[in-house]
Amino acid sequence: MLRWLRGEEKEKEPEVFESVANGLKKLYKNRLRPLEDAYKFHDFHSPALDDADFDSKPMVLLVGQYSTGKTTFIRYLLEKDFPGMRIGPEPTTDCFIAIMHGDVDKATGTINEGVIPGNALVIDKSKPFRALSSFGNNFLSRLQCSQMKNEVLQSISIIDTPGILSGEKQRVNRGYDFSKVLTWMAERVDRIILLFDAHKLDISDEFHEALNAVKMYDSKIRVVLNKCDQVNTQQLMRVYGALMWSLGKVISTPEVVRVYIGSFWDQPLRYDENRILFEAERNDLFEDIQSLPRNAALRKLNDLIKRARLAKVNAYIVSYLHDNMPSMFGKEKAKNKLINDLDKIYVELSNKYNTSLGDFPKVEEMRKQLKMADFTKFRGLSESMIKKVDEMLSRDIADLMTLIQREEAKMTEKIRQDGPAVK
Amino acid sequence: MLRWLRGEEKEKEPEVFESVANGLKKLYKNRLRPLEDAYKFHDFHSPALDDADFDSKPMVLLVGQYSTGKTTFIRYLLEKDFPGMRIGPEPTTDCFIAIMHGDVDKATGTINEGVIPGNALVIDKSKPFRALSSFGNNFLSRLQCSQMKNEVLQSISIIDTPGILSGEKQRVNRGYDFSKVLTWMAERVDRIILLFDAHKLDISDEFHEALNAVKMYDSKIRVVLNKCDQVNTQQLMRVYGALMWSLGKVISTPEVVRVYIGSFWDQPLRYDENRILFEAERNDLFEDIQSLPRNAALRKLNDLIKRARLAKVNAYIVSYLHDNMPSMFGKEKAKNKLINDLDKIYVELSNKYNTSLGDFPKVEEMRKQLKMADFTKFRGLSESMIKKVDEMLSRDIADLMTLIQREEAKMTEKIRQDGPAVK
Ligand SMILES: Nc1ncnc2c1ncn2[C@@H]1O[C@H](COP(=O)(O)OP(=O)(O)OP(=O)(O)O)[C@@H](O)[C@H]1O
Ligand SMILES: Nc1ncnc2c1ncn2[C@@H]1O[C@H](COP(=O)(O)OP(=O)(O)OP(=O)(O)O)[C@@H](O)[C@H]1O
Ligand SMILES: [Mg+2]
Ligand SMILES: [Mg+2]
Repeated sequence: MLRWLRGEEKEKEPEVFESVANGLKKLYKNRLRPLEDAYKFHDFHSPALDDADFDSKPMVLLVGQYSTGKTTFIRYLLEKDFPGMRIGPEPTTDCFIAIMHGDVDKATGTINEGVIPGNALVIDKSKPFRALSSFGNNFLSRLQCSQMKNEVLQSISIIDTPGILSGEKQRVNRGYDFSKVLTWMAERVDRIILLFDAHKLDISDEFHEALNAVKMYDSKIRVVLNKCDQVNTQQLMRVYGALMWSLGKVISTPEVVRVYIGSFWDQPLRYDENRILFEAERNDLFEDIQSLPRNAALRKLNDLIKRARLAKVNAYIVSYLHDNMPSMFGKEKAKNKLINDLDKIYVELSNKYNTSLGDFPKVEEMRKQLKMADFTKFRGLSESMIKKVDEMLSRDIADLMTLIQREEAKMTEKIRQDGPAVK
Repeated sequence: MLRWLRGEEKEKEPEVFESVANGLKKLYKNRLRPLEDAYKFHDFHSPALDDADFDSKPMVLLVGQYSTGKTTFIRYLLEKDFPGMRIGPEPTTDCFIAIMHGDVDKATGTINEGVIPGNALVIDKSKPFRALSSFGNNFLSRLQCSQMKNEVLQSISIIDTPGILSGEKQRVNRGYDFSKVLTWMAERVDRIILLFDAHKLDISDEFHEALNAVKMYDSKIRVVLNKCDQVNTQQLMRVYGALMWSLGKVISTPEVVRVYIGSFWDQPLRYDENRILFEAERNDLFEDIQSLPRNAALRKLNDLIKRARLAKVNAYIVSYLHDNMPSMFGKEKAKNKLINDLDKIYVELSNKYNTSLGDFPKVEEMRKQLKMADFTKFRGLSESMIKKVDEMLSRDIADLMTLIQREEAKMTEKIRQDGPAVK
């Protein structure tokens, strides 16, 4: 995929999105986090954000029957072997492998390369896999991270998965809940690529199960029909039709999932009657993958805006409760009355601060949280803290937004100049 | 389609199947019908067969949105305009049109050509449309038969239908139940071809309704994605994929319905990058349509065998009832007792004549029929009548079967020599 990343504009792209991530990180620390801390946001709503939450790259998850070419596909994207890579006709990949750009070794200044085993991976704070430890040891011995230096991995991370087995073979127990792990991954990644083999289309029961495990994230799903050059055009149409037929039955949305047709490796085509189609499809897929950092940056920015609005509302609520507590006696009774009146307080605050009721946390949830809270630790509203967040929303975030949009305009301009991928 | 019909073997084909139909007709009249008459088969089971039941050709029904090219498709099959044909970009066909080979005019010896309006068509005993009169006058004024001399129509008949409208237009009431008419047709035809326009794929609500009206006959359904040369390959893949996706949701069978991809008219292709595919698909579709007479002959033969077995069993039952009626008094009481014991009589007869109980008519149905019957009109078993039917089953039908199979072997041989349609 390297040659798609290259080119004048594209080379700068990861930096831009990196600077957006860094910008957001700084804004969070200096402007939002103080407001969150002051009004117990982390107790009532959501834990504080780590650097890893801003730094983590968009992730692409590969899912498919064994031998559909998942590992080969990744090798084709990277144009390079990755540590621990195994490719072969029999079921080969037996681990979940997160393929990521190596960290810089602080001591030597070089990029770390090599394999981190699962147990070490889930205690690494700089990696987004800590929650996976709950899947237990059987799973952790089937999890690893491959670190390497690679241009593609500067913008995205990739997760290779063990091939899904069909028929007899699938009865061999994996020792961990494969579908649950898939669902966990599917929720966190930015793109799910389902691979099918045009030469041997086979949607087994276990594959159905895997599909069910990810289908609720259907907007993230893209499908690759691989090895399409191994069959002639008429056979290809039958296989592709059968695939769409089956997918339509499993995925309930009326929107048709995008299927990319081609052969994703560096070998010459067997039947090359559809070369032009395959090339156009590959361009489309690579453009989709390249758009992930842009989309991920936008999503992070969007998430931070949402969080900031909630943090403000939270400050209004908590300071109101503080202001309306008696200074001497009857604290417990007053607390209960305030919690009871919370819905009315919402309306009052919504009017006073001209804030939509939709921005307020769910009343019942908030009541539950407040019951456990110590109201004497609450404080009055700090106008200056609110002002800092307002400035962030109206000025700093807008600047970052402009940065992303300018980048996007450049990309579009470039596509316009080069002409569209298909004519 | 004419050039597909031609060639040494193929030229004889309609004759062979015609002679099978004639053979069956003669066998029915001389051997089976006397047994049916003697034991009241037509009262108890099913009306006597007409010549039309043996002569009617396999029928192909065209269904689709307006302007998908249904009428053009028929013109392309026939290589000739048909009487009353109208083709155009706006909704054009506003009638159900049965396109059939003209009868021979007894007086002049020439082939009848021209249009028979609906009201006249449904009283014509030689045509299989008499039951359509129940759909009422609004419908009959939208029904016609186009007769003409044409080689293709010697083996099949074709039914063109009004295009299905979408959106605003579909609210205009047709004045008759379109879906019900479609279901009636779908039940009787041998092949249902659903046409879609690759250039303007649009599965409206009313089309959904039409699909629902025919989908229970899913084994008869073939789909044509027409006008495929009007879009480039990548667009074609998207449209075709979307079609399969939607069809998979509507048709519940796991077996994928066969979709033929191409452009079915006599104009040059616009994008011709898929010429070879389109030609292979057309060959496949025409072979499928050509196989209809063979299949229809087999089906008729099969139906006659089933009918003969039932007629024999019916004769056993009726003659048993005759033999066990008292000659003088207590007729009514004896009749009731016999009807009551019918299940036991079945077992006795099944043993005596070494006939599977599965060949017997449903007990409850038969009881109902017998209650209304006059047992004094029954007669004893005629061994010679049974013998005639047995000979028909073991000798004559087998001969006709051989005829069909020999024909089939010739066809297969021819395909083998020419090589398969696709390589
Ligand atoms: N585009 C392609 N065309 C033809 N063959 C391919 C293609 N991609 C991969 N293969 C072959 O298919 C086989 C399986 O490839 P690979 O190991 O990448 O699949 P996988 O999906 O990772 O399998 P597993 O689930 O077992 O890990 C290998 O023999 C490989 O050479
Ligand atoms: N294979 C084809 N490629 C491109 N255009 C076509 C093709 N077949 C038909 N057309 C054009 O599409 C239009 C509609 O054709 P036609 O009248 O045969 O459709 P129809 O399905 O019978 O429509 P209706 O339901 O209104 O009767 C006409 O303008 C015709 O020339
Ligand atoms: Mg693999
Ligand atoms: Mg028409």
